[in-house]
Amino acid sequence: MVTDNASSATAGRPRGRSAVAVPELVEKARAGDPRSVGRLISLVEDASPLLREVMAEICRHDDSAADRAITIGITGAPGVGKSTSTNALVTELRKAGKRVGVLAVDPSSPFSGGALLGDRVRMGDHALDKDVYIRSMASRGHLGGLSWSTPQAMRVLDAAGCDVVLVETVGVGQSEVEIAGLADTTIVLLAPGMGDGIQAAKAGILEVGDVYVVNKADRDGASSVRRDLRNALALTQRGEGAWKPPVLMTTAQDGSGMAEVVAELDKHAEWLRASGELARRRTRRAREEVEAIAVTTLRQRWAAVGRHDRLDALAVEVAEGRTDPYTAADVLLDAPESAG
Amino acid sequence: MVTDNASSATAGRPRGRSAVAVPELVEKARAGDPRSVGRLISLVEDASPLLREVMAEICRHDDSAADRAITIGITGAPGVGKSTSTNALVTELRKAGKRVGVLAVDPSSPFSGGALLGDRVRMGDHALDKDVYIRSMASRGHLGGLSWSTPQAMRVLDAAGCDVVLVETVGVGQSEVEIAGLADTTIVLLAPGMGDGIQAAKAGILEVGDVYVVNKADRDGASSVRRDLRNALALTQRGEGAWKPPVLMTTAQDGSGMAEVVAELDKHAEWLRASGELARRRTRRAREEVEAIAVTTLRQRWAAVGRHDRLDALAVEVAEGRTDPYTAADVLLDAPESAG
Repeated sequence: MVTDNASSATAGRPRGRSAVAVPELVEKARAGDPRSVGRLISLVEDASPLLREVMAEICRHDDSAADRAITIGITGAPGVGKSTSTNALVTELRKAGKRVGVLAVDPSSPFSGGALLGDRVRMGDHALDKDVYIRSMASRGHLGGLSWSTPQAMRVLDAAGCDVVLVETVGVGQSEVEIAGLADTTIVLLAPGMGDGIQAAKAGILEVGDVYVVNKADRDGASSVRRDLRNALALTQRGEGAWKPPVLMTTAQDGSGMAEVVAELDKHAEWLRASGELARRRTRRAREEVEAIAVTTLRQRWAAVGRHDRLDALAVEVAEGRTDPYTAADVLLDAPESAG
Repeated sequence: MVTDNASSATAGRPRGRSAVAVPELVEKARAGDPRSVGRLISLVEDASPLLREVMAEICRHDDSAADRAITIGITGAPGVGKSTSTNALVTELRKAGKRVGVLAVDPSSPFSGGALLGDRVRMGDHALDKDVYIRSMASRGHLGGLSWSTPQAMRVLDAAGCDVVLVETVGVGQSEVEIAGLADTTIVLLAPGMGDGIQAAKAGILEVGDVYVVNKADRDGASSVRRDLRNALALTQRGEGAWKPPVLMTTAQDGSGMAEVVAELDKHAEWLRASGELARRRTRRAREEVEAIAVTTLRQRWAAVGRHDRLDALAVEVAEGRTDPYTAADVLLDAPESAG
């Protein structure tokens, strides 16, 4: 395993100023060199201007959609055992000979500037395995956040030859929805004894999961969580030929139940391919990514033009109550500069 | 006091379909009619197409920046006593004869679709006061979230004749930064016994506060929180004539210390005016608001055009690995349709 902590990976060198030969870096990453993979992901985290070249270079080599990595999102409330489950899942996927990349995303902390190291420590099981790449990623609050940086980091791991890319994220509100948008398959983790949290989240999680896992199956209440969940899922409308999300039980701590999870993941991947849903999901994802990049590019253009110009003048008018913000936005959009 | 729960306020009528005479609604809101204020804020929450007209109408009447409401953001980790402090602050501001609007923003819950009622119950002190308007607001996860809907709701309360608009938000990471961008003055609340939470947040909160309040001053450790905070603030660089954020002690439960908080808020408002910082902050805020509206408008245009057209085709190319997302974004931006 190769772990990179977000902050340590880029420490000690001035950001965006080191001379990087992108084609060489991508070539090395494609050959599986973990250090090059790490540098590419750091470029993603830093929203480096080099990303444009990196993505073009990765794309240039990528001649088939068929051998693309399957991406799996893992979400759930704090305390359900996400990291332990991710760890156990990696073990199981390795038994099947898969090359695995793990991205642990911490969207909650624009201040800390780095993901929690604690979680990663528990991944120690794979410390000597060169076919496992684990990376904590912080979104650093730059434009677009999770939705912007994670797909690019996933693309890097895909290019680096991973068969499966796991994305583990803190399941707090928005991010559950986001992760469902990011991955081919979404695992929603639950655990007994979480009380109201599960109830409150239920409306949301019923829509995002492809595979539901009740972890800590050895604890009291696990089977009632499963029953409640199955009942709730049974009420959701699903069309002919639609995927029916299974509800599995695991004890990630000792790995029990993980083989069944991997079997269901395989089944879901098969269904995704056979139903055409894989292409649909990936296209939807690409659509959002392109849109996010376009919007960011546009904002940068505005910032470049507007800083000494139109947007500032409009902002003063709005602040002084002479114009309303909608009219100002129209003026901005119709200005020739903003059209690029 | 008039409370509106986000969900109940719009329940029972089809969204965006009721015939609303905007000029009449704005006129009534300006006269202080709470029901009209509530309906306007519901339009904001729902991102109604009528907002454009509402904002133009409000702006048409708004002839001077000088008598604009002072906006005060209140942020802090869960458990520090935000709602109790907001309540005590309203009491104190009412003693000074101010008309007060309160927005309680819950950015964390795209699923629940409504803010927590529990917090509002504690505001019961002002239940009979018609010069206090309290509203829970959910951002419902629509584009732009907090940064989009809150300034508009604040503008509605301003138009409705509030002298002070308080915005209370859950202090979790991003939202602390956002609230600092939204308000003229930002109060950062702390409390003893919060442990590591304060430490972790410290780097962030040192930059956003104009007034720091250590609540629960009667508890052990309150004065050491104040000391630590003062020491940390002393280390931050501030230029000549800059505002030096005070650190105050309160027990919001019984209102002690609140008079000092209001005195400091007044001082800060004076400083904002005298230094020109008020106009700068409001212009910055307006700038972000105009930009957010412009970006959203643009996305809507893209959605309208691109759904059957270019963006979809580009997304397929990216999903299949034939184009990288940056190149696709460039194509999208350079397409004549996207320029409006």
